[in-house]
Amino acid sequence: MDELQKIVEFCKEIDKEKFIGRQTYLTGGERKENDAEHAWHSALMAILLSKYSNNQNIDILKTVTMILIHDIVEIDAGDTYAYDDTAKQTQREREEKAADRIFGILPPNMCEEYRSLWEEFERNDTPEANFAHIMDNFQPMMLNAHTNGKAWKEHQVVLSKILARNKDTHKGSEILWEFGYENFIKPNIADGNIIDDTHTKS
Amino acid sequence: MDELQKIVEFCKEIDKEKFIGRQTYLTGGERKENDAEHAWHSALMAILLSKYSNNQNIDILKTVTMILIHDIVEIDAGDTYAYDDTAKQTQREREEKAADRIFGILPPNMCEEYRSLWEEFERNDTPEANFAHIMDNFQPMMLNAHTNGKAWKEHQVVLSKILARNKDTHKGSEILWEFGYENFIKPNIADGNIIDDTHTKS
Repeated sequence: MDELQKIVEFCKEIDKEKFIGRQTYLTGGERKENDAEHAWHSALMAILLSKYSNNQNIDILKTVTMILIHDIVEIDAGDTYAYDDTAKQTQREREEKAADRIFGILPPNMCEEYRSLWEEFERNDTPEANFAHIMDNFQPMMLNAHTNGKAWKEHQVVLSKILARNKDTHKGSEILWEFGYENFIKPNIADGNIIDDTHTKS
Repeated sequence: MDELQKIVEFCKEIDKEKFIGRQTYLTGGERKENDAEHAWHSALMAILLSKYSNNQNIDILKTVTMILIHDIVEIDAGDTYAYDDTAKQTQREREEKAADRIFGILPPNMCEEYRSLWEEFERNDTPEANFAHIMDNFQPMMLNAHTNGKAWKEHQVVLSKILARNKDTHKGSEILWEFGYENFIKPNIADGNIIDDTHTKS
């Protein structure tokens, strides 16, 4: 019963993820989404889109679990916006400390299991982590395009940064990365919602 | 590519689930949760608590998928509060119509697959559906207890209704139902947050 008490304590603690705001606007653009909403959406999309994974033998439950837990550290560390270079410098240290505290609420064997699953997501060096990562990027890209690039415009995001952030995205799925580039990125470059700085530099 | 377009259309449509409010208060009690947050929390709890399922051979991915999609119909049909008897009379009809439209966005084979998974959840007649259902009830019960019964008090919920709503909850997990009753329900009866009408009736 002590083990169950600890798991339930963890379940209560992670409720706080619903208060961690992200930069992506939801359909209609009236408010931005939070980490829990993002995790739900990305996890379900991973299931629906798993047939497009480069690796056809991924463990989908593992991928989904990874997505469901991937932002839990942000309860303490906060959301680090993908294009905030200053915040990104301290991100790793803040998130490690958060992982110690939050996964530490679980019984020891589960703490180890879920902490190492989060580390695997962070390293992005397995087919499951690759597919979890493309979902983590494809979902907000889809919503940004769906809200006429509102978040991109708000942050004056330039194409070179999107491409740098997504340099490994294709590892999860060449098909989905290509689809996202054609359907989400390109039309928003054409509309001026994403600033194309790649031509001026070359 | 046509198939992928349809799946992505569905993924965009379900974003609206984040606007469907529920009656459960989040930690701190400052606002209520929405369907997407509830689905994320319950799905992750299903993974963390799966060892307590009565049936030790449940397909966890199937259970998690069921939880992730179980409230999608509420995008059109709205959330029907568990203790609103009037709304419950028209719930089935409203939700069937919503399922036709929303799952209908998917390619035909996937429409059938996910629609029938939702039907299985509704029928609650398989071990996976049983475990999905206990998560659907255990998660708000945990949060209601964690916020000093705020939602129970607001709706003047009586014990006989909680017991009626949860008459099948034990089918998913005897251990978790017992834990929930002892740790979430009983202390809130003692504190007067849940009105005990079971003694007066007998």
